[in-house]
Amino acid sequence: MKKTIKNKIINDPIYGIITLKKGIILELINNPLFQRLRRISQLGLSYLVYPGAHHTRFHHAIGAMHLMQNSINEIKNKGHIITKEEEESLLIAILLHDIGHGPFSHALENSLVKVSHEKLSVIMMEELNYQFSGKLTLSIEIFKNLYSKRFLHQLVSSQLDMDRLDYLRRDSFYTGVTEGNIGTERIIKMFDVVNDNLVVEEKGIYSIEKFLIARRLMYWQVYLHKTVISFEYTLIKILQRARYLVQQNIKIYSSKSIIKFLNKDFTIDDIQENKNMIHEFGEIDDHDIYFCIKEWVKERDYILSSLSKRIILRKPLKIIISENKIEKQFVEKIKKETQKKLKINKEELEYLVFTHSVSNKTYTHNENKINIITKDGVIKDIAESSDQFDVKTLTKIVNKHFICFP
Amino acid sequence: MKKTIKNKIINDPIYGIITLKKGIILELINNPLFQRLRRISQLGLSYLVYPGAHHTRFHHAIGAMHLMQNSINEIKNKGHIITKEEEESLLIAILLHDIGHGPFSHALENSLVKVSHEKLSVIMMEELNYQFSGKLTLSIEIFKNLYSKRFLHQLVSSQLDMDRLDYLRRDSFYTGVTEGNIGTERIIKMFDVVNDNLVVEEKGIYSIEKFLIARRLMYWQVYLHKTVISFEYTLIKILQRARYLVQQNIKIYSSKSIIKFLNKDFTIDDIQENKNMIHEFGEIDDHDIYFCIKEWVKERDYILSSLSKRIILRKPLKIIISENKIEKQFVEKIKKETQKKLKINKEELEYLVFTHSVSNKTYTHNENKINIITKDGVIKDIAESSDQFDVKTLTKIVNKHFICFP
Amino acid sequence: MKKTIKNKIINDPIYGIITLKKGIILELINNPLFQRLRRISQLGLSYLVYPGAHHTRFHHAIGAMHLMQNSINEIKNKGHIITKEEEESLLIAILLHDIGHGPFSHALENSLVKVSHEKLSVIMMEELNYQFSGKLTLSIEIFKNLYSKRFLHQLVSSQLDMDRLDYLRRDSFYTGVTEGNIGTERIIKMFDVVNDNLVVEEKGIYSIEKFLIARRLMYWQVYLHKTVISFEYTLIKILQRARYLVQQNIKIYSSKSIIKFLNKDFTIDDIQENKNMIHEFGEIDDHDIYFCIKEWVKERDYILSSLSKRIILRKPLKIIISENKIEKQFVEKIKKETQKKLKINKEELEYLVFTHSVSNKTYTHNENKINIITKDGVIKDIAESSDQFDVKTLTKIVNKHFICFP
Amino acid sequence: MKKTIKNKIINDPIYGIITLKKGIILELINNPLFQRLRRISQLGLSYLVYPGAHHTRFHHAIGAMHLMQNSINEIKNKGHIITKEEEESLLIAILLHDIGHGPFSHALENSLVKVSHEKLSVIMMEELNYQFSGKLTLSIEIFKNLYSKRFLHQLVSSQLDMDRLDYLRRDSFYTGVTEGNIGTERIIKMFDVVNDNLVVEEKGIYSIEKFLIARRLMYWQVYLHKTVISFEYTLIKILQRARYLVQQNIKIYSSKSIIKFLNKDFTIDDIQENKNMIHEFGEIDDHDIYFCIKEWVKERDYILSSLSKRIILRKPLKIIISENKIEKQFVEKIKKETQKKLKINKEELEYLVFTHSVSNKTYTHNENKINIITKDGVIKDIAESSDQFDVKTLTKIVNKHFICFP
Repeated sequence: MKKTIKNKIINDPIYGIITLKKGIILELINNPLFQRLRRISQLGLSYLVYPGAHHTRFHHAIGAMHLMQNSINEIKNKGHIITKEEEESLLIAILLHDIGHGPFSHALENSLVKVSHEKLSVIMMEELNYQFSGKLTLSIEIFKNLYSKRFLHQLVSSQLDMDRLDYLRRDSFYTGVTEGNIGTERIIKMFDVVNDNLVVEEKGIYSIEKFLIARRLMYWQVYLHKTVISFEYTLIKILQRARYLVQQNIKIYSSKSIIKFLNKDFTIDDIQENKNMIHEFGEIDDHDIYFCIKEWVKERDYILSSLSKRIILRKPLKIIISENKIEKQFVEKIKKETQKKLKINKEELEYLVFTHSVSNKTYTHNENKINIITKDGVIKDIAESSDQFDVKTLTKIVNKHFICFP
Repeated sequence: MKKTIKNKIINDPIYGIITLKKGIILELINNPLFQRLRRISQLGLSYLVYPGAHHTRFHHAIGAMHLMQNSINEIKNKGHIITKEEEESLLIAILLHDIGHGPFSHALENSLVKVSHEKLSVIMMEELNYQFSGKLTLSIEIFKNLYSKRFLHQLVSSQLDMDRLDYLRRDSFYTGVTEGNIGTERIIKMFDVVNDNLVVEEKGIYSIEKFLIARRLMYWQVYLHKTVISFEYTLIKILQRARYLVQQNIKIYSSKSIIKFLNKDFTIDDIQENKNMIHEFGEIDDHDIYFCIKEWVKERDYILSSLSKRIILRKPLKIIISENKIEKQFVEKIKKETQKKLKINKEELEYLVFTHSVSNKTYTHNENKINIITKDGVIKDIAESSDQFDVKTLTKIVNKHFICFP
Repeated sequence: MKKTIKNKIINDPIYGIITLKKGIILELINNPLFQRLRRISQLGLSYLVYPGAHHTRFHHAIGAMHLMQNSINEIKNKGHIITKEEEESLLIAILLHDIGHGPFSHALENSLVKVSHEKLSVIMMEELNYQFSGKLTLSIEIFKNLYSKRFLHQLVSSQLDMDRLDYLRRDSFYTGVTEGNIGTERIIKMFDVVNDNLVVEEKGIYSIEKFLIARRLMYWQVYLHKTVISFEYTLIKILQRARYLVQQNIKIYSSKSIIKFLNKDFTIDDIQENKNMIHEFGEIDDHDIYFCIKEWVKERDYILSSLSKRIILRKPLKIIISENKIEKQFVEKIKKETQKKLKINKEELEYLVFTHSVSNKTYTHNENKINIITKDGVIKDIAESSDQFDVKTLTKIVNKHFICFP
Repeated sequence: MKKTIKNKIINDPIYGIITLKKGIILELINNPLFQRLRRISQLGLSYLVYPGAHHTRFHHAIGAMHLMQNSINEIKNKGHIITKEEEESLLIAILLHDIGHGPFSHALENSLVKVSHEKLSVIMMEELNYQFSGKLTLSIEIFKNLYSKRFLHQLVSSQLDMDRLDYLRRDSFYTGVTEGNIGTERIIKMFDVVNDNLVVEEKGIYSIEKFLIARRLMYWQVYLHKTVISFEYTLIKILQRARYLVQQNIKIYSSKSIIKFLNKDFTIDDIQENKNMIHEFGEIDDHDIYFCIKEWVKERDYILSSLSKRIILRKPLKIIISENKIEKQFVEKIKKETQKKLKINKEELEYLVFTHSVSNKTYTHNENKINIITKDGVIKDIAESSDQFDVKTLTKIVNKHFICFP
């Protein structure tokens, strides 16, 4: 009988033990749309550079929920009211915040369908709300920032949300890039709420600076690592080529689950109009893509097979990164040499030699800025509060340009 | 120019930074037969219980090689001779010790082909030896224990080999079962060689005891966790059912890579006679199996589809574990109830209700026993050396019997 | 205003952040009798072998209180009642459980005064109860096992109490003997209460085994490390010699705080009769002893100065450890040689050549045994529950005999 | 016999196991001047805020030597020559770099004697060189930057030396301020030497940024934590007061070891002229100071006893920190109130109410700047190399002003 109130616990290498609350939380976790996140890697192809990075969106979502619970406890301890219903809705909102991710997470975002993962998350949350008879309504409101208590949304989505607190720490842990580690526990202990805004106590200022710098470090050392970029753009090119061949009626291997998405470029409207679509999209995970790529290695089309081999045998395209735009002349030279060597046409060349840019902004002055509260109760933007460490420079967008070629 | 002597380094969350030596080591790592290990999970389906456990055979092999390098350095520092050639061969032997593993590692061992992973490792090592013009000959001799210096083999395969030192620590790390963590560094510092035997200095005795108890703990808490067993036997049953259907000419989905292995039960002779076979086996990894299972969810055969769903949706068969054999009467009762409820025939029942046993022996008195050297130079088996901790009880085989059912 | 409900937080390298509750808890921590624990090392002279081991009784007490809070939360979550008053009393009881420790903790126990630290703790708790107008009455009852709810006492003092959970982990952490690390978090998550007994859920059995083996390992590797023993017995001999000289009216340096305790061997009755005594004892900490030893290095008495030098210059007496009693003949031989070489008399010889024994029992079958509760609700002693790991052998007392000599 | 080549190993909670090389290294460690570092805390009174921070100069010196060995190995692997003699001298130089520290390290620097710890280190190294018959000559040359190979000195003393690499990591570890943790291993792996300058490979740039920011964080969060400042200035005032009383011939308790240093303000000339002085200074450690302070608690002089109580009972003077100079008017107001309340004279007031400032510069453009080498072989100052993170702002000196009062 006592057993009936028992929650489930799971082991997390980072936080130790995480409690999964009985009831709707556990039911959502057991839902097929959520279980599929077990088969979607958090960091796409980063494991080809950091062999430990095989953790999943599933694990990240559970971890972020754990941090949310800690934050809720802290804020309540500081004397603020969060109702039972709000608490549960917060846990659900963060649990499902990434549910719209498709295979390889960001690496293939906007590639399989032309829709961002956030929008897909909302659609899936609405589908789950339907399945759960409206019990997710408040969660969705909080997620969309439509709920009156604004700080609840900030816990789910802001520059200091549970998403970031978990992913930075988790990605740091699994890649072994220990410098990216952040003191989530200390940051959470410094949380407070003032005027319906999530704020950080002044003595936490160094932890926030550390958090920003760790985030920046993870961007350049992991997320935008040049070999990772090379592989992820290769993956995108593979899907583009497959789509091209399919649409040209050139027969290539394709699983039933994926062929539909190669045949047509779906938009958000397509998905919203046809409820089946979201389930069909939800059936695709990393394994489907890997399986196709492994098959495509053996295809006759040189572009498709040679790019696929690069993933499977870990042979990255060369990549040159520069702070300036890659000079046109240089690009032309590379293209000419490649075309000559491989005897391919101009159109095929676009899959093997291409330029692009990536960018990162560590901190943004916007309405979701990070607020520091001083001992005197004054609230300041972190970018104004730091004495020495120039947070302002972190608001600068850094662009890096690159060219990939065989 | 100086650059030409540079080795490659990779990040490991456990040991920090691992150096990959230029030359044959790096070439072997880049070989397709080795790169495939990136797509073979170390712990099969354990991630369904421990969500962090997505690490791969690739990572384990690299980690074990790192420990081998440390052990070689230590033993050389203690004044023993290991030649340059022996050193390289040791590193290769441990790097390749698990190369014969197929998808899901142990979970599907003897299932896809009726051959142990050790034998497959030897066959693959011989294939690589052919590709590398005989440069692996000494490695293979050491691996097979045919080389004159016996302690070299003990570093590769014994009760205290680099394999165990790495996998216990790595599996402990990724599952978050911190109690399984072992002090690899301290154990290695205690290594010495006496009469061509790897021995451990007496003051390392507690570390060895701890290692044995950690190993035992990992067995029952992770490797033989009851829900993991339930899932892994479900996986085996899925493949049996698929094979049965294929051999009955009932059409089910099957990828080209796998169909061959479902059609026929290959033995070691088949593989040794036909060199292609090992490459065909080498093309199969976790993704192929997952892809098939995902397709099989939609098959018309109830057994195949319902078992496949259990994996994909994480719905384990119930499992009861007992120290005694499951009573026949009880098994019959369960079978009768299941048959009645699901309306399936007797033959189908075998896939859904089954008994089996698992066993574990923490320590074995055999020629590869763990030797302790006392300060006076006397060598003793650890099972004789410990004053209080009764290692002898650890030599007992523990059997656990179980029954699975829907 | 909100500020007034704020607790204090401190950083702990092991648990992260520890909350110190406002009110009586914080007041007790600020009491001089508690603050003195900052100047009493947890592990006596172990830092002469493990240079990291400078942590204090203060830190241990705070850590144990933190674990107590977690255990209370867990037990309450499992549906058991612990009242507000009981909760506070439990926190106080564990906070003060070691308050009676004198300089160097166990190393000088029964040496400065002939009273165990537990008895001194009770006397100090009673003194604090007087200062705090009786608010500690329930804590003292729980501590002495006089309170009706027996499991509360078990959390404070049993084979699985917060004291052990913290000190094993903390000592392991600061010495760097990582094998001694235990999964406190997991053990606490497995706590339950049945029939007023603290029990551990069956699935926690491996963690308990691990805890026992870690404890054993820490005993022989750290607490009873032979060089540590040599230093700690040297310290005892120094105090004996100082006392002898003082009582013989031979003038040696002595601080006012210590001279009283050298002049007379105080018993528990002396201390209970005279309330001042406990405060006088409470003024002595590690610094007083170190300061005297440093002065004694320069004394004319050869025994006192040579032993003192051994501590200050880290020159341990030689020590031979054996599982059997040291043979009389051997002892005599050593004594004769030493006497001849150093030209000292028989009485002096006893300070430089001496035998003794240390013992350790990892687990005890007694009323405070560790109880495991099976899924069926049956309660068993851990020594009966383990299938393979023979806990019974751990109940054996292991004695080690030693001889120290210059 | 083989035993004769065995080194000693010790456990370090941070790096695992550290090897102490037989020969001069081990002999220096066993020298009384080095052993005294076991009784000198690394972080002075910081443990009153961070209870884990009881680590010693001894431990730091050993840790820095360990990192030096790793750096030497790395640089040699990169193809640069470091001779056997240079290697040993580097290890010695870093082992002894802090040997001149007196009790409480920086907290009492320039207080007991008016000489910096670096100068005292040189004097002690010269004394040891005399004891070791000139074997430390090269070490001293490297330490003083008089040796031809300049990069050797940079390993001992620069903005990226072994001293900083160890103390940041160690202080972070023991305080539990995990955000201060730095990836020493990764930084060392990026070391190279170009034109006799220690440089860092370009891909290590984020680790260096992280190192700088961690250093800054540790300064403000630990080293210059306001309560720590309050206690450390209290300590300085205690010694000033004691000196004043002694020089006024007012009798207070004083140990033989300290009285000499209270009687007179020694300068570097005094110490260099009289070799005994350095040994007398070398006999004073934390215990002497603590012992005196404990005695002073009971002195009749109100200033001395009330300040001493603040340390022993952990009652910090109030402290207000400001980015601007404390306004004169405000200081006067505080002084007036205090004087009135405590009925003390003006001169006494200076010990209880005082202002001062602390400053920190995270990075300095000077000849020991941190050099980054790009892939093209160009060398740049880190302050010029970082794209986004504005290292230049870190070169700004940050001053903080404070006032302490009862």
